[in-house]
Amino acid sequence: MTTYSLLILPGDGIGPEVMAEVRKVIGWFQTNRGLSFDVSEDLVGGAAYDKCGKPLADETMAKAQSVDAVLLGAVGGPKYDNLDFSVKPERGLLRLRKEMDLFANLRPAQCFDALADFSSLKREVVAGLDILIVRELTSGVYFGEPRGISADDTPGNEGGRVGVNTQRYTSGEIRRVARSAFELARKRNNRVCSMEKANVMESGILWREEVQWVHDNEYPDVELSHMYADNGAMQLVRNPRQFDVIVTDNLFGDILSDAAAMLTGSLGMLPSASLGAPMANGRPKALYEPVHGSAPDIAGQGKANPIACILSFAMCLRYSFGLGAEADMLEKAVEKVLADGVRTGDLMGAEGGKPVSTTEMGDHVLTAL
Amino acid sequence: MTTYSLLILPGDGIGPEVMAEVRKVIGWFQTNRGLSFDVSEDLVGGAAYDKCGKPLADETMAKAQSVDAVLLGAVGGPKYDNLDFSVKPERGLLRLRKEMDLFANLRPAQCFDALADFSSLKREVVAGLDILIVRELTSGVYFGEPRGISADDTPGNEGGRVGVNTQRYTSGEIRRVARSAFELARKRNNRVCSMEKANVMESGILWREEVQWVHDNEYPDVELSHMYADNGAMQLVRNPRQFDVIVTDNLFGDILSDAAAMLTGSLGMLPSASLGAPMANGRPKALYEPVHGSAPDIAGQGKANPIACILSFAMCLRYSFGLGAEADMLEKAVEKVLADGVRTGDLMGAEGGKPVSTTEMGDHVLTAL
Ligand SMILES: CC(C)[C@H](C(=O)O)[C@@H](O)C(=O)O
Ligand SMILES: CC(C)[C@H](C(=O)O)[C@@H](O)C(=O)O
Repeated sequence: MTTYSLLILPGDGIGPEVMAEVRKVIGWFQTNRGLSFDVSEDLVGGAAYDKCGKPLADETMAKAQSVDAVLLGAVGGPKYDNLDFSVKPERGLLRLRKEMDLFANLRPAQCFDALADFSSLKREVVAGLDILIVRELTSGVYFGEPRGISADDTPGNEGGRVGVNTQRYTSGEIRRVARSAFELARKRNNRVCSMEKANVMESGILWREEVQWVHDNEYPDVELSHMYADNGAMQLVRNPRQFDVIVTDNLFGDILSDAAAMLTGSLGMLPSASLGAPMANGRPKALYEPVHGSAPDIAGQGKANPIACILSFAMCLRYSFGLGAEADMLEKAVEKVLADGVRTGDLMGAEGGKPVSTTEMGDHVLTAL
Repeated sequence: MTTYSLLILPGDGIGPEVMAEVRKVIGWFQTNRGLSFDVSEDLVGGAAYDKCGKPLADETMAKAQSVDAVLLGAVGGPKYDNLDFSVKPERGLLRLRKEMDLFANLRPAQCFDALADFSSLKREVVAGLDILIVRELTSGVYFGEPRGISADDTPGNEGGRVGVNTQRYTSGEIRRVARSAFELARKRNNRVCSMEKANVMESGILWREEVQWVHDNEYPDVELSHMYADNGAMQLVRNPRQFDVIVTDNLFGDILSDAAAMLTGSLGMLPSASLGAPMANGRPKALYEPVHGSAPDIAGQGKANPIACILSFAMCLRYSFGLGAEADMLEKAVEKVLADGVRTGDLMGAEGGKPVSTTEMGDHVLTAL
């Protein structure tokens, strides 16, 4: 029997609470579906900093490189706001992304029918929304050199400083994430929209040209369009259902995928997968995490919605282990729980009613399974 | 009597059509309010390229530097999509912004009561919305060096290219736009929210620190908060009315202000002002333009909504000439026309009815004046 190795990094804030529910789901699949998981757990973010002065220990990094998949909760919190840049909680997550070379970040923005009324957008604009944002995750302005803050005395800035970051993309970096987007589009509605600012940035021109090249040479059957990222932000608000797959760079992907997530009204519901190149066993390097953050304001109170984290595990079953049937099963269980009207606090609307706790929501999912 | 000098640059697409209506409004103020304007006109964008092979002639640039205010329509169009980067229509606009040093771009996102149902957002989320985005306009990744595309043979990219842009901000650049935001907030609801990605970019850390410095030393009476730009995009979608003034950099400002504009459902209605340092006569260097683009699909058909361009002229009256009463008068006239149910095609909803043309809309505004 295959044993799948998982490294769980609950992280900060509500991370440990929501991850505890994922552990229950993992247990369910072991007991009831005969799957075998080898689960280890470690620290990331502020939790790691508190213990060892770094947001990710080298041993944890090595472990992440050796497992089949990493499951991450969330990182960050006000307690760490004044830490030096190099040891901020976020650096732990960024190091994982970079050293595991997880270049394709898949962020589905899906509107669950039972929750369509939670969106700040009109129901008719978002009902049935199902788009997939593929964000480049290991390059661009997040990682480009030179970077930093230094003294600067140019005229108008006497005695001042200058802050620099570098947006940098190679053909190879653009082509590989474009391929991911085209592959995913083929399994969906076969349409890709690529977003950049080619009217202002040369790196955006290269982005556009390389995506077009991959299309023309390798995926001519997929429909490709290009859009400036500012217009993309507008179109996401105006009529998000016009999109199928969106492919964009690290920084635009950060902003646009958060806007898209919020459209659905279901931020506590949205999972993500970050995938790299295939390992020796054929599985891609992979990290799964909810789109929401560490929500320090509600941490430790049993109020957090564990569904985004549970659905991230569904993505893990599908993308890391090829267990599509099991992933479907888990997603259907979540849908059923929602259709039954079970709601955590973040999903309580005007209807009122009593919210369930984090663990109760996890239990409902198990029951539905 | 003071004579105000204006340079009109209609530009491309619907630019000339909407600007023709502004000319009528200028004429009205000359005839009926005893104001004196010295108006000249010239080319920018694709129109300038067609005539002289450059998107902005040096003589036009010199004229822009010498007048009290520039009124611009819009630039760009598919006809120019394959031009070399250095002569694209957008470069004309960017040259004006840079050489006139128009560092503060004011983009109000206002939801007109008569149009609240046009938004893709629920009426209760956007009704009465009135926020002001102050976008830094002359620095950041739009202008930072080094930039460009070159050959690159690093491993994984053999035979490929690399595209580079540089995000660069000095203390002085950040402080001056922060001051604009605080000044404007004092005349509104006294709250400023600054947005960056200080968790990922050092230039964002400098941004946050310098905005805080200006606050603490010069505007301690104004309420200041900081938000990561991805969360900002979310919050704009979730609950935009939480904001008063938002201050952010050139690229985030581009994306976030377009998203904010679309929230209002009134893209054809939104003006903008780009302001620089005071000239010898005490007036700021200034350029006014609608937020919408050149809309090539409807150009030349008399369908465009001239209101954004007309309201940009109202901003000109207020910010360049201190004619607040006249600006109010023009804004009220526009509100009256809308309340009366007059609509261009872009504002036609389910109610149906017959849209008015660009010139008819202009006439209605004159009548209301
Ligand atoms: C936590 C932060 C570093 C991160 C990012 O900016 O990528 C987050 O916003 C995300 O989108 O995953
Ligand atoms: C036309 C383009 C260069 C411009 C920009 O990116 O600044 C536009 O999108 C804007 O927001 O004024």
